Amino acid sequence: MKFSHVRIALVSACIAVALIGLTVSAALEEKQQFTIYPVGWVRKADGKTFIEIEKQYEDGLLGLDGFSHVHVIWWFHKNDTPEKRRVLRVHPMANPENPLTGVFATRSPVRPNLTALTVCKILSVEGCRVFLESIDAFDGTPVIDLKPYVLGDRIANVRVPQWAKADAASNQSQ
Amino acid sequence: MKFSHVRIALVSACIAVALIGLTVSAALEEKQQFTIYPVGWVRKADGKTFIEIEKQYEDGLLGLDGFSHVHVIWWFHKNDTPEKRRVLRVHPMANPENPLTGVFATRSPVRPNLTALTVCKILSVEGCRVFLESIDAFDGTPVIDLKPYVLGDRIANVRVPQWAKADAASNQSQ
Repeated sequence: MKFSHVRIALVSACIAVALIGLTVSAALEEKQQFTIYPVGWVRKADGKTFIEIEKQYEDGLLGLDGFSHVHVIWWFHKNDTPEKRRVLRVHPMANPENPLTGVFATRSPVRPNLTALTVCKILSVEGCRVFLESIDAFDGTPVIDLKPYVLGDRIANVRVPQWAKADAASNQSQ
Repeated sequence: MKFSHVRIALVSACIAVALIGLTVSAALEEKQQFTIYPVGWVRKADGKTFIEIEKQYEDGLLGLDGFSHVHVIWWFHKNDTPEKRRVLRVHPMANPENPLTGVFATRSPVRPNLTALTVCKILSVEGCRVFLESIDAFDGTPVIDLKPYVLGDRIANVRVPQWAKADAASNQSQ
């Protein structure tokens, strides 16, 4: 067997092993993670606040103007680092006087999955644009999903801890 | 140049092109998608309904028992196919008498990102387990995030279209 043949065989073997490795790791990961794509973006311009839905998703807005409010699910994209996704406890509203609290008991912008949730008042829906009274997200923030605020979302008897009462006016400070 | 040398050169060139392609596509996609990992799972057993948070995230539950209700963000994992993620309009609650409506104006289980949102009453928090009064998700459903239901989530004046009034008791039929 010539030396060049050995090299070809080695290269081929390396490619085969790499392909098997990629396939196996993809199959394992498939069960453990999901992929989300931005469907639009928060825009703040000329004193107006709106969500600009990507043109390809515009059909999904039909009928949204029949609702007064919408849940906007967006992504804390500026915090998408392994370190910030490992944070599990914070002082709510970044106030050290608030008790150390698990991120699942706060609206903290650092958490394992960087989903953010805000209830917004709809002003109008025009083409790809959903004009809102306000949203506590930066201009350029990726939007993941919109869901109408339905009657079942309005809970009559709500109990919250003392620190969360101070934040009654906002639903997304942390 | 020997024939075997040509083959080695060709194989090497193919590998180089493939690697460049993978790198470029990964860089492009990086801006356009985000990854979510299940933080727990819906469990229904022995007449009880609870969310079992993965052990590694248990610290994130501290203080959740101070709230009466929690927003559960979960994943319609059974619908995670390209076809179902392309659906943009549905008849709400799978009722053909309801008007064709954009998925962003419904709680449809088919939509571009398969996020689901349910407000649940918390019964207790015990270790990794958050016991709920109920949730409209199957046993084994991946949970993405938990967020406390705060006073700002309770909207006083809500307007919904006629079809959504029939669904006042449930907030996730579609």
